[in-house]
Amino acid sequence: MSQYVGWLDLARVVREARLLVVVVAGACAASATARADEAASVSGKASHAKHEQWGILEVELKGPSGGNPFEDVQFAATFEQGGDKKDVAGFYDGDGTYRVRFSPGKTGKCSYVTQSNVAELDGKTGEFEVGPPTGNNHGPVGVHNTFQFAYADGTPYRQLGTTCYAWTSQPEELEEQTLETLGASSFNKLRMCVFPKRYTWNQNEPPLYAFEGTPPNKWDYSRFNPAFFQHLEKRISQLRDMGIEADIILLHPYDEGHWGFDRMPDEVDDRYLKYVVSRLAAFRNVWWSLANEYDFMTEKQESDWDRMIKVVTDADPYGRLTSIHNGRILYNHTNPLLTHASIQNGSAAEEAGRAVLYRDVYRKPIVMDEIKYEGDIPLRWGNLSGEEMVHRFWESVIAGTHPGHGECYLHPSDVLWWAKGGVLRGESPKRIAFLRDILATSPADGVEPIDKWQVPNVAGKPGEYYLVYFGKESPGKWKFQLPRQKRDDPKELAGGMKFHVDVLDTWNMTVTPVEGSFTIRQPAAADYVAVDTESRSVDVPDRPWMALRITRVEE
Amino acid sequence: MSQYVGWLDLARVVREARLLVVVVAGACAASATARADEAASVSGKASHAKHEQWGILEVELKGPSGGNPFEDVQFAATFEQGGDKKDVAGFYDGDGTYRVRFSPGKTGKCSYVTQSNVAELDGKTGEFEVGPPTGNNHGPVGVHNTFQFAYADGTPYRQLGTTCYAWTSQPEELEEQTLETLGASSFNKLRMCVFPKRYTWNQNEPPLYAFEGTPPNKWDYSRFNPAFFQHLEKRISQLRDMGIEADIILLHPYDEGHWGFDRMPDEVDDRYLKYVVSRLAAFRNVWWSLANEYDFMTEKQESDWDRMIKVVTDADPYGRLTSIHNGRILYNHTNPLLTHASIQNGSAAEEAGRAVLYRDVYRKPIVMDEIKYEGDIPLRWGNLSGEEMVHRFWESVIAGTHPGHGECYLHPSDVLWWAKGGVLRGESPKRIAFLRDILATSPADGVEPIDKWQVPNVAGKPGEYYLVYFGKESPGKWKFQLPRQKRDDPKELAGGMKFHVDVLDTWNMTVTPVEGSFTIRQPAAADYVAVDTESRSVDVPDRPWMALRITRVEE
Repeated sequence: MSQYVGWLDLARVVREARLLVVVVAGACAASATARADEAASVSGKASHAKHEQWGILEVELKGPSGGNPFEDVQFAATFEQGGDKKDVAGFYDGDGTYRVRFSPGKTGKCSYVTQSNVAELDGKTGEFEVGPPTGNNHGPVGVHNTFQFAYADGTPYRQLGTTCYAWTSQPEELEEQTLETLGASSFNKLRMCVFPKRYTWNQNEPPLYAFEGTPPNKWDYSRFNPAFFQHLEKRISQLRDMGIEADIILLHPYDEGHWGFDRMPDEVDDRYLKYVVSRLAAFRNVWWSLANEYDFMTEKQESDWDRMIKVVTDADPYGRLTSIHNGRILYNHTNPLLTHASIQNGSAAEEAGRAVLYRDVYRKPIVMDEIKYEGDIPLRWGNLSGEEMVHRFWESVIAGTHPGHGECYLHPSDVLWWAKGGVLRGESPKRIAFLRDILATSPADGVEPIDKWQVPNVAGKPGEYYLVYFGKESPGKWKFQLPRQKRDDPKELAGGMKFHVDVLDTWNMTVTPVEGSFTIRQPAAADYVAVDTESRSVDVPDRPWMALRITRVEE
Repeated sequence: MSQYVGWLDLARVVREARLLVVVVAGACAASATARADEAASVSGKASHAKHEQWGILEVELKGPSGGNPFEDVQFAATFEQGGDKKDVAGFYDGDGTYRVRFSPGKTGKCSYVTQSNVAELDGKTGEFEVGPPTGNNHGPVGVHNTFQFAYADGTPYRQLGTTCYAWTSQPEELEEQTLETLGASSFNKLRMCVFPKRYTWNQNEPPLYAFEGTPPNKWDYSRFNPAFFQHLEKRISQLRDMGIEADIILLHPYDEGHWGFDRMPDEVDDRYLKYVVSRLAAFRNVWWSLANEYDFMTEKQESDWDRMIKVVTDADPYGRLTSIHNGRILYNHTNPLLTHASIQNGSAAEEAGRAVLYRDVYRKPIVMDEIKYEGDIPLRWGNLSGEEMVHRFWESVIAGTHPGHGECYLHPSDVLWWAKGGVLRGESPKRIAFLRDILATSPADGVEPIDKWQVPNVAGKPGEYYLVYFGKESPGKWKFQLPRQKRDDPKELAGGMKFHVDVLDTWNMTVTPVEGSFTIRQPAAADYVAVDTESRSVDVPDRPWMALRITRVEE
């Protein structure tokens, strides 16, 4: 244990010889040495050694390693901070090591007491001093304004996701390359599976497996493989330090019995889910995605998903964002345990008038997690042009929903970004970065439809900010005309208000200001739109993928 | 009582002097004389005097008329037929008359026994002999094949609805004219309110009110007005005899306190709903629509609707079709008490790729109950062109959903079909009749999307029947190409299958057969579509609103 001591400057209490409290705010990898290295290599921030709000407090204890600790030993802790108590499950991490992790939601003293059926793990207490968040730590992302997301500190979170399903099951160099690519991209969410992937272009065995046993399919489901999860945690913490949310896909169908992780017995599924949650829930960038294409997992019934969603949300002390992603059959996202809808439907992103419909039915953030992928594979879900991918991003955003990217360009070694990561070869990522930059100055409450069933191509915030997206055809000339959200509110677009217009070329990534400003003519009560006092129009270049940004000018 | 005797040929049992069993299979109006007259005038069918499956068995008893019978007297009966028992609430019909109605779901002997807290209404028994259905009696409409409807006898019910919200609150002659118009139309469902309507173009007081009291708003909510309900029942039975389903809107916001029926206390709402159900549920053509634009009833909370839906479905012995219609906020139609989704969203019917999305989320029949109206009023929900109305009907049908019509042409006496009925002046009804004729030979399991998120403009039944709808733009030439629903089923579109094509002009109402047949080239496993062996195309006239009907030709 001596190697830990050097950086345990913040451990508060060591109650007895066999008890060691390891405090890790930030990274949680296989060994303390590795942990320190990673923290440094990924973020280079000293703050990682500190306890901070929304960081991770970890208690490490030594206990029995004989028998089957995964089954025999119960271990948990109660964390208390300013009168708020949370019961948190711990987990066995191999080699007689037990851990319990807590992510404090506020600053100040945080004490804990452990519970176990094993004396040496029971009744241990300690205390942490939790400081304010540092660096890019804005806390976990949660639902904001019904349909939008924000970090816990109030910073808007404008989801622009991508997908590398099995990136953590690849060789070390490839995983590092994926991180590098992500670091240079605009994506702030990554959909990623816990289990490896078996599918076309995905025939490689992973370096590590989640269970003890013999690949491909002789597993001791009663024993997890800590090294597998330590590796996964390392990758999640690296994403976190890069400001990328990890949408953890807990189960998926791309196995079909090869390993059998898609058809584990119910009790194994449940134990697995609880174990994952006990390890990962404290990472502030973790979201739970119960499954990818849940309905393609033919061994499961819909009731299994109802049950498993509850297993996860019951086990999760923080109420992390939770969803389930469909193949052809949408899960009932009105389930109150789901924080948002995660939807695969490429066609719904083809135009905002479709995507917007999901908002009404679910009354939650709509994440368009699979709107087909840019690429050149023969399957129609993976051969969008770059233009079409970017178009769908814009349509989704204008619909008040949250799009996800993926890329499927064929590769001589089958390294397709969509599954394995590596490098991005498509044309859409840099246009998505342009969209990110546009959204960076959009209203904090989100880009929302204004007149949801009437004017599908305009969104923003009434009276303040409008994005108008023209898609495949430019109108040539656009009469300045803003839809009204509430006709009974004469102040929404009152006579005399002035607006500035920028013409956006979403493909060529240009912002061209329109000279002069537009002044609202007071609309009559019956008017559905407000126009310029001089009925002016805006010239829009005769190209596809044009948009307008219309912002209120204070005088 | 003597006037009843003449036509009571089928009454089985008169147990005591004050007990009179009146059997009415078919009509249920204010007096027996009126009843017989109506049965004759509306349908002219002798069968109405018989007891038939899905008709109405009615037990009439005399009881107390003092005090407040609506509150003081409990009255119900248990009907038993072939071992199946149903408890059915009775109701007070004024003048010391109590009735309980039952609609038998099968043929054969049906016995009953009454229950009451009043001795003279309690423990009365009797028996009916129920024969098979006659005439156009196909039983009640229910859900079929998840997204479709069918009558109880298996006959497909292809919903083509219209709307006359307040037609039963108009002068006699106007109501009769409405019936005449409906009889000459193709509509097989009518959305209609129980309560009168107060709104632009709707300023007239109705002839009758549902409660005792003084108009406009001094009501004794503890006493219903039987004459009001007898009139309503007369109209519902007339619709039934014309083969028109009555989508009864139980509550609505077009009142705003004028009468106050939009803001009755909870207990009044519940008592009212139970009373309506006890009177109307036995009519086989009744559907329950909890409200029109429920969310515009500002005095109600969403939880009130949850409660009231349960009140209705608990009270209804038959599980009649039940829905609730929205303004801007969709109710959560996943509520298992709702049999189908009733949706107002004009934009969703603009193209099939939108409407189809509701199927996935609700997994129920989707009734597009308000897709805007043909008309010329200044409000945008009521000024569609005839072309646009018909277009939306086609798009809804191709989406596998069920459209509703309405008409709002201004009229010197404010007789707009949408609210008051009268005559139809629009251009869409006869094109809707053309659509009805097309659908008459469509598959019994409904016109269903084939490749739901990929080819929004083709629907039908895989391998048998396809409708292709082109909407606003004709393609000029259409390559014969059928989407495959299941690529793993090589028999769906097997090589050598032959298809006949008709070119449909949905506006000009013509069916033009294409010469010769088209022969399927066996698709490869990876193919998303099947084409003609000679890659033939179909010429489509260069006009909007064109469609194709493609039917399998057996050799």
